[in-house]
Amino acid sequence: MAQIIDGKLRAAKIKEELKIRVQALSGKGVVPKLAVLLIGDNPASKTYVSSKAKTCEELGMFSEVHHLPENVREEIVIDLLKGLNADTNIFGLMVQLPVPKHLNERKLLDIISPHKDVDGLCTVTAGKLIVGGEKGFVPCTPQGIMDLILSTGIELKGKRAVVVGRSNIVGKPVAFLLLEQHATVTIAHSRTADLGAVCREADVLVVAVGVPRLITGEMVKPGAVVIDVGTTKIEGRLVGDVDFEGASKVAGFITPVPGGVGPMTIAMLMKNTVLAAEAHLTRK
Amino acid sequence: MAQIIDGKLRAAKIKEELKIRVQALSGKGVVPKLAVLLIGDNPASKTYVSSKAKTCEELGMFSEVHHLPENVREEIVIDLLKGLNADTNIFGLMVQLPVPKHLNERKLLDIISPHKDVDGLCTVTAGKLIVGGEKGFVPCTPQGIMDLILSTGIELKGKRAVVVGRSNIVGKPVAFLLLEQHATVTIAHSRTADLGAVCREADVLVVAVGVPRLITGEMVKPGAVVIDVGTTKIEGRLVGDVDFEGASKVAGFITPVPGGVGPMTIAMLMKNTVLAAEAHLTRK
Repeated sequence: MAQIIDGKLRAAKIKEELKIRVQALSGKGVVPKLAVLLIGDNPASKTYVSSKAKTCEELGMFSEVHHLPENVREEIVIDLLKGLNADTNIFGLMVQLPVPKHLNERKLLDIISPHKDVDGLCTVTAGKLIVGGEKGFVPCTPQGIMDLILSTGIELKGKRAVVVGRSNIVGKPVAFLLLEQHATVTIAHSRTADLGAVCREADVLVVAVGVPRLITGEMVKPGAVVIDVGTTKIEGRLVGDVDFEGASKVAGFITPVPGGVGPMTIAMLMKNTVLAAEAHLTRK
Repeated sequence: MAQIIDGKLRAAKIKEELKIRVQALSGKGVVPKLAVLLIGDNPASKTYVSSKAKTCEELGMFSEVHHLPENVREEIVIDLLKGLNADTNIFGLMVQLPVPKHLNERKLLDIISPHKDVDGLCTVTAGKLIVGGEKGFVPCTPQGIMDLILSTGIELKGKRAVVVGRSNIVGKPVAFLLLEQHATVTIAHSRTADLGAVCREADVLVVAVGVPRLITGEMVKPGAVVIDVGTTKIEGRLVGDVDFEGASKVAGFITPVPGGVGPMTIAMLMKNTVLAAEAHLTRK
């Protein structure tokens, strides 16, 4: 029976550590502050944003939420982002996704200063994952996934890792982070032939496709670390991309849904914002 | 016996096609022009740069080479790059690598305007490979590799591709381009355990590590497409990363060294410069 990787517990521990760093920063006159742009009235987005603001408060950080109407003109959003880039009290700046269809999401994200890009979604931040050199902020979900994998104590060097899903936000960056840890990395996706055989190669299996229970127990290598990033609501219940019941009989470690990757994302957003404030202090 | 993929022939064909596009541009008053910065006296770099200038001439394009002394101050290079960014007669701008050690290579590359980054090495250009949206220039060697693979007529969708080597300039971008073509992509490297077994999974095998004859015939899947990017000079002869004699008995298609990937890189640089001039015309 696999050991459960408790994301809730791990996230709580990270937040406790962050509290201490926030106190140290505050002692030097710098309180980390996160600014979030929320456009429109998507109920899920509203919930996410208020949970971010709440977590900031919990950690002794400041936050501000800019709520703009659904039909806001793009130039208004751009001007607001530029103003927040220039505001020296703000260390982290993010746009809650998705944005309404009339807005160019990529254009908006790329206005955020790389120094404040705590969501790690700017093009230039993504590029830094490839080209090396000065590090950018690591996007929150991939960073949370890596933290959970490493929390099992597994040595990734020379191990085979398979990432199912090639999204820009999760699959691709996770593949890079695994590569950085010297794993041999395979990226599989909806067009992959014999997904089961590919998954069975994996000492570490990360699944991020949003297809409920796609990965069954027979597709998991005995003893593997299985990270389930998918969350689909079925009959009011969150269901992952991995058939937990079947896979947990084969895997060595496995994340539950909910309570696995989910809680880590927000913890990593807080961590990036603290890092941004610490970097600001170093640059001064 | 494998079919030889003739990079020299393919590059010549691409250059013939480009000549026609250059003529069309010239007819509209736009002659594609490439500016190259050469710093110091590395003999290999000098050869590459003069071959680029010669190829420009061959295709009816303009070029200018800025040769700076080995000990040039970084600010001088930066000012020159900024001036060339602003020069509306220049469509492609590149720095010949490597640069002398006292210069920050990444900083210099990132000054180049993404619109002129025909080598495809800026951080923001690399980021575009991940985040999607507006396309940047595809780096030349990876682009040449993809052209050679597709020239065999192989359908990549659902096939397994293995890239040996995870460099920023070749391995990582090639992995992305293969993924874009819907291959299931594995990135292997010096820390990979049982490299032979990993390579034998490959319907398409791209090797870019610079270790002469690392890949033997036994490591190749029968019928595979094998692309050898390595070039090491041994006793005055160029040797690839693949043992050509052994591998060509097993592979379906294979590139020779020299005469495989090498000639494609410069052809793709010319193609990117023509694309830059065409894009300029569209923006006007």
